[in-house]
Amino acid sequence: MLENTINGIEIAASIRSDLRTSVEAFSKESGVPPSLAVILIGDNPASAVYVRNKEKACAEVGITTQSFTLPASTTEQQLLELVEKLNSDSNFHGILVQLPLPPHIRPSKIINHLNPNKDVDGLHPTNMGLLLAGSPYLAPCTPAGIQELLLRSGHLPDGKHVVVCGRSDIVGKPIAALLVQRNDRANATVSICHSQTPNLSHITRQADILIAAIGKPNTITADMVKEGVVVIDVGINRIPDNTRKSGYRLVGDVDYTNIQSKASGITPVPGGVGPMTIAMLLKNTLTAAQAQLLP
Amino acid sequence: MLENTINGIEIAASIRSDLRTSVEAFSKESGVPPSLAVILIGDNPASAVYVRNKEKACAEVGITTQSFTLPASTTEQQLLELVEKLNSDSNFHGILVQLPLPPHIRPSKIINHLNPNKDVDGLHPTNMGLLLAGSPYLAPCTPAGIQELLLRSGHLPDGKHVVVCGRSDIVGKPIAALLVQRNDRANATVSICHSQTPNLSHITRQADILIAAIGKPNTITADMVKEGVVVIDVGINRIPDNTRKSGYRLVGDVDYTNIQSKASGITPVPGGVGPMTIAMLLKNTLTAAQAQLLP
Repeated sequence: MLENTINGIEIAASIRSDLRTSVEAFSKESGVPPSLAVILIGDNPASAVYVRNKEKACAEVGITTQSFTLPASTTEQQLLELVEKLNSDSNFHGILVQLPLPPHIRPSKIINHLNPNKDVDGLHPTNMGLLLAGSPYLAPCTPAGIQELLLRSGHLPDGKHVVVCGRSDIVGKPIAALLVQRNDRANATVSICHSQTPNLSHITRQADILIAAIGKPNTITADMVKEGVVVIDVGINRIPDNTRKSGYRLVGDVDYTNIQSKASGITPVPGGVGPMTIAMLLKNTLTAAQAQLLP
Repeated sequence: MLENTINGIEIAASIRSDLRTSVEAFSKESGVPPSLAVILIGDNPASAVYVRNKEKACAEVGITTQSFTLPASTTEQQLLELVEKLNSDSNFHGILVQLPLPPHIRPSKIINHLNPNKDVDGLHPTNMGLLLAGSPYLAPCTPAGIQELLLRSGHLPDGKHVVVCGRSDIVGKPIAALLVQRNDRANATVSICHSQTPNLSHITRQADILIAAIGKPNTITADMVKEGVVVIDVGINRIPDNTRKSGYRLVGDVDYTNIQSKASGITPVPGGVGPMTIAMLLKNTLTAAQAQLLP
């Protein structure tokens, strides 16, 4: 691993280790551990892997989980009813709905129905709005993880020009909202680019910190960034690879090999943003449990 | 008025004229006119003028208003109780809390307590979050007014680089969120700058559309914009002027005289964004009434 690698595995491990201590203290004081309900619908194999990893990570820090696994044929109404039940069940402090949902279920319908105090993914409009207003409560996990990565790797956004490529609800828009705020964890000048941006490279070349959340391999090439840039690669793309037993490997959105030699910091894929997202999920679950049991 | 003037008075009048028709149809169908509760606290003379103008504009399109005028000594708790009462009073479809509040009352405390369905200023976290997620319901009035100004004056943001100067909760952050969305009323590449942006003019000179919401006269000068820029000036600043009876005049945040000769479009102050903000308040009040009475 080169010196400029931003090691998400290591940073996430240190956060989880701190969380283990905090969860233990919470459980002692409140009498119960933080508890997360995990809803998984359909049989997307990637989703099943994500859920398993999240449950394992919860167990390791002392958060209990209960899975609700539903068939792909579940109707929107049935899912809303389950959410409703969990919203008012005081045994669960957090509710996680694993995305993507089957195409006949509107994700916004489900997310907007979550109790915002249990919305550990931070995607409910109330949590998005608190984020935009600069008072995040349960912040979306990937953006929160990116902010922590920058701060803990010493690449402070304060006074920097951050260029975000991608405008998804889960990453692009909320990370822009987080990093533009007037506080010492943020305070960046932020540009948001996307598929309809003309002359993208003209803007990306101005980035002190570039956040790629596009979902397409090799979209950011070395000629599109300046010397000394910090690159946060949020993409997780499968590309065919015959040398692997699985037949594929994971790559991000940036041309890692050629950018690494220009960058002052860069996250690998895997091992960059991914582990941070899970760490922030654990943190949100503890935050939600604290607010519900020790207000 | 020069040809490149974006005439907010005229555009707002046309919106109000359409609204008058819609309000009339609504009142006929529902049996009652849309109704707005206006809360004014303390004796800020500017606030009193704003409230009077808003009430007058409501009356003109057929929206009824009732004022709740409280002394500057009102406690936060007392104000929260009034909000609570109005939240559940079905006689009011909208609630407007005129800002700024006296310093001992936290605005976020009051705003977050509003029923989001009656939040006609669009500042409640749920409304800010719906905006960020691209499904605005009651959008903040000034940003919504700016978007309408751009669309109705033919300066479509689609495919343009919009540079927003200022990151307030009321203008800067929500207008950035509004214009970056993937839809044909938006779809801009957006940069947000602020007081801590190094080399501000380097970014402003890239703007196809520049939105100045800084609150300081003459902050954007002609050398900071490119030929053909469209400038939306959100500032309303009082500067001393002995030639006026009042002793002052209103100016925006940009050097209007020198920028006008470079710009392909520019809003005057007064007569640009201001009238649009009020028009959007009327629109939000109708929207709220429709959702409550004709869902």
